[in-house]
Amino acid sequence: MTYKEKLAAIRELMRQNGIDAYIIPSADPHISEYVPDHYKCLHFASGFTGSAGTIVITHDFAGLWTDFRYFVQATEQLEGTGYDLVKLKVQHSPEYIAWLYSKLNNGAVVACNQKLLSAYLGDLITEELSDKDIKLKDYDLLAPVWENRPALPENPAFLIDAQFTGETVSSKLARLREALKSYKADSTLISSLDDIAWLLNIRGGDVSYNPVVLSFVIVDHEKASLFIENGKLNDTDLSKLANESVQVFAYNEIENAISEIPAEHTVFIDPKRNCYALYKLLKTTSIVKNINPTTHFKAVKNATEVEHMRTAMVKDGVAMTRFMKWIEENLGKTHITELSASKQLADFRAEQDGFAGVSFNTIGGYNAHGALPHYAATTESDSEIVADGLFLVDSGGQYHYGTTDITRMVPLGNNTEEHKQDYTLVLKAMIEGSATIYPKGTRGYQIDAICRKPLWDYAINYGHGTGHGIGFYLNVHEGPQVLNPTSVEISLETGMITSIEPGIYRPGKHGVRIENLVLTIAQTENEFGEFYAFETLTLALIDTTLIKKELLESRHIAWLNNYHQQVVEKLTPHLTAEESAWLKEKAKPII
Amino acid sequence: MTYKEKLAAIRELMRQNGIDAYIIPSADPHISEYVPDHYKCLHFASGFTGSAGTIVITHDFAGLWTDFRYFVQATEQLEGTGYDLVKLKVQHSPEYIAWLYSKLNNGAVVACNQKLLSAYLGDLITEELSDKDIKLKDYDLLAPVWENRPALPENPAFLIDAQFTGETVSSKLARLREALKSYKADSTLISSLDDIAWLLNIRGGDVSYNPVVLSFVIVDHEKASLFIENGKLNDTDLSKLANESVQVFAYNEIENAISEIPAEHTVFIDPKRNCYALYKLLKTTSIVKNINPTTHFKAVKNATEVEHMRTAMVKDGVAMTRFMKWIEENLGKTHITELSASKQLADFRAEQDGFAGVSFNTIGGYNAHGALPHYAATTESDSEIVADGLFLVDSGGQYHYGTTDITRMVPLGNNTEEHKQDYTLVLKAMIEGSATIYPKGTRGYQIDAICRKPLWDYAINYGHGTGHGIGFYLNVHEGPQVLNPTSVEISLETGMITSIEPGIYRPGKHGVRIENLVLTIAQTENEFGEFYAFETLTLALIDTTLIKKELLESRHIAWLNNYHQQVVEKLTPHLTAEESAWLKEKAKPII
Repeated sequence: MTYKEKLAAIRELMRQNGIDAYIIPSADPHISEYVPDHYKCLHFASGFTGSAGTIVITHDFAGLWTDFRYFVQATEQLEGTGYDLVKLKVQHSPEYIAWLYSKLNNGAVVACNQKLLSAYLGDLITEELSDKDIKLKDYDLLAPVWENRPALPENPAFLIDAQFTGETVSSKLARLREALKSYKADSTLISSLDDIAWLLNIRGGDVSYNPVVLSFVIVDHEKASLFIENGKLNDTDLSKLANESVQVFAYNEIENAISEIPAEHTVFIDPKRNCYALYKLLKTTSIVKNINPTTHFKAVKNATEVEHMRTAMVKDGVAMTRFMKWIEENLGKTHITELSASKQLADFRAEQDGFAGVSFNTIGGYNAHGALPHYAATTESDSEIVADGLFLVDSGGQYHYGTTDITRMVPLGNNTEEHKQDYTLVLKAMIEGSATIYPKGTRGYQIDAICRKPLWDYAINYGHGTGHGIGFYLNVHEGPQVLNPTSVEISLETGMITSIEPGIYRPGKHGVRIENLVLTIAQTENEFGEFYAFETLTLALIDTTLIKKELLESRHIAWLNNYHQQVVEKLTPHLTAEESAWLKEKAKPII
Repeated sequence: MTYKEKLAAIRELMRQNGIDAYIIPSADPHISEYVPDHYKCLHFASGFTGSAGTIVITHDFAGLWTDFRYFVQATEQLEGTGYDLVKLKVQHSPEYIAWLYSKLNNGAVVACNQKLLSAYLGDLITEELSDKDIKLKDYDLLAPVWENRPALPENPAFLIDAQFTGETVSSKLARLREALKSYKADSTLISSLDDIAWLLNIRGGDVSYNPVVLSFVIVDHEKASLFIENGKLNDTDLSKLANESVQVFAYNEIENAISEIPAEHTVFIDPKRNCYALYKLLKTTSIVKNINPTTHFKAVKNATEVEHMRTAMVKDGVAMTRFMKWIEENLGKTHITELSASKQLADFRAEQDGFAGVSFNTIGGYNAHGALPHYAATTESDSEIVADGLFLVDSGGQYHYGTTDITRMVPLGNNTEEHKQDYTLVLKAMIEGSATIYPKGTRGYQIDAICRKPLWDYAINYGHGTGHGIGFYLNVHEGPQVLNPTSVEISLETGMITSIEPGIYRPGKHGVRIENLVLTIAQTENEFGEFYAFETLTLALIDTTLIKKELLESRHIAWLNNYHQQVVEKLTPHLTAEESAWLKEKAKPII
């Protein structure tokens, strides 16, 4: 079926069921950012492959609402599908709700698969449209249309040792129960897979790039119950869980279990990380809504996790060094494309001990493709890389030692003044952010502004956030902290690991982004209070050949030289003599 | 009566009425920041003279909750009064509510004069304490205790011409009604005096420093009603208002008028700018709560207002120049004190055409007094100013041409390296903020972070906001925009005038603050969007003798030299030859 045929089939089902507007969110019943193939509904319906977006279909319009990162990609992918691109003003904002309000008549019917809608959005849509008496109904209109829909994944899951995670399941459950007490809650339903993975020290392979397992958890002050497909855990792990007083049930028993939560319980729910369908099953009169306590616990890495992350960074830095050297030596000699380069980089990572896969689909964008902040090469789009322009590589690995995420620019030759200026300004912004000293209590939006300032000075800006939290051998994107311009009231705390990744994108020409991971550490305490700083964890060469020194201040150059000294010191013991010499030459101080 | 006797009398009344906790807010029935003497309840009860704070009295505790700015002052003023200082963690946050919740038993009774409590706080207190079944009752316990309480002010009010304000009352009412329509509201109650002053082009003298008149306004789609004490407006102005279709009623008829709003009306209310007592009189079933539309209209100055503000800045700059020259020439020769210097400065302002008073109680703080961000000298605290240290002067004028607010440091001699470093860093922060180019949509919290960064670099911070909106011949503090670290979701718009005033405070030693007013202007538009910038409006010498040039970058020095060139060019035509020569020498470029 073509996308237009699918759209016609969905509209026919809408007509049969009296539906005026149908919403297709980008999520699974765990409200994941990355979803199993079974739930790639946007891709099935429209061909769009981005990680964020919402489709809304009426009888005379079909649109995909997505953000800046995907404007160029969506424009190409939606060509001829019957879907229009609707550009979000604010990333992740459900702007389609106001659109529905303005377009629909009183008493209209909106529907969606409520398993794919967060409880937060379900409530919001219901409330915002209540004025016009518009109802939100539960229909899965894709199921009847979707031939050969991929099955739910059945990959094995496994427990990881507290020697890696630094904390036992019992200790984590105790902390969660303390938090529930502070909310006066009797129990909680957790659907978010990374929260569950952290809480139960469990990992799996159900979602590409994210080492999570499809599951739900219900915790109260007596019991902890895990809902997971039979056969995913082996007997050893099952008995380990039993030893930690975790009971295990089948994945599809979750609905019954929710119905059985006593009506007098106060239930804690993270409305953005549970689906509307399960939330509506709750029969309890008292619901407390807030961010999952585990989200915060997970974000603050313990000393064991930090130590392992440092190991992961060395391994990742070795792979990145070999990759950059490989490009330099093969450019113009071997046939290199975006895909073959990404494959080569993954191979270098795979040579490292503890490697468990890449942490996201590599963004390897040559010249104009680099202007698409979340570009992922396909066999159709794959460009040959020649000695002309810029190659942006944003990539990462999952290691048993932790998760990495790094962006580097590879200059290929014939670099223009604009390349050099954009490169230097992005580097300056990255260093400004990384070198910031900030009082305890500082929020991500404050660091974000400081990071953007060197670009604003030139009337340049970027449409994505400056940084995101990252998991420990878990999802490459995690909250609650975030560096972006929106007013997210989350302070940076010591132990949090966050990316800093400003960029400049010139559609049709090139994109520049440089990204490191940084750890929030205590810096000093004095009469003005406590101050924090960032320790940069990522260890890899940052190209110096494109730098226009006159755009930097001496402190930026000092920062870069000091950084490169660290990179060389820490990677050299793990490189061959030839590789070390190459890195040392490339990373030599600029004056 | 001593403060302790007053406290005992209040507690006796609490006992008689079965009240467990009594709240005394700092406000009037218009929820003003500065209030008529009749409503200076905190001062009456405790002697505290700060502009922000809340007293809470129980039978075994009496405390004043106030913020960073007043910690030192409150500690001194509350000595021996029976009140403890409770330090707010977050400025303006009602942290006493959580305290009440933790201290009071189930079913306890809290009371306050609900005319002095905002509708927002009334709702919040009621909700937060409902869990323990604690009721909020309406009692004025100060009235019986307060002998010789000052009467309500009876100063005349007057209309100002659209030639000054740039917009007629009819046009403003039309804009307000459009806004009400967008909220689907039928009518609105406005209690905030600056909103009323703006809307009706009316000014008065009921509150020190703020040229406002005690009044209320009700506007619906047919009528506009002003409630003002009889006799305050003369017949000419009354007939002008009649011509603009504004009906005038007595001030105390507001309660009846509110009761008469049709029950089927949807009423728009700004819950933070109306009192709880009037809000509770509303009988309508539908209330829309948001910031008064006039608050936003008022903040965006029109071309006429901006042009007049430029005139006001020249007048203010002339007065500031004469003042700084006067100090230099009289230091060590004449007996100068904080109060006499403030008086001299007010006299220089009063010589200017259109002067209508100072815009707030001058903060003239010598050495350690400068460390109190909102210090105001009293006859008891008044320090002699000698040729040793730093003098911080934060002052402003009300002119028919507009309102000013400026802070300058006057170096007096024997300045230490710490003086010089603090001075230079504050100057750097002020320039960083002033020179920022920022995308349309930028919020105050982003500018705030950029401004603080030069201080954070040295692990220094300040506890107040970086800047506030300012009225046009109106209140020196106005919203909705604000530059501070909290997540206030208000974007800076072209036409807004805001202060930029970072500081460093070293208790017991000195304080440094430098403040200019800046206008948001359009800077450029390109492929990355629209960008705004600040145009500095304030025109006065910024001392250069304390600058440690090695702490600045060349762009800061260039900014300062350019600023001083503007100051000299614009003020010279209004100064004597001797004054011009003095200014030109002081403002000469630093290299």
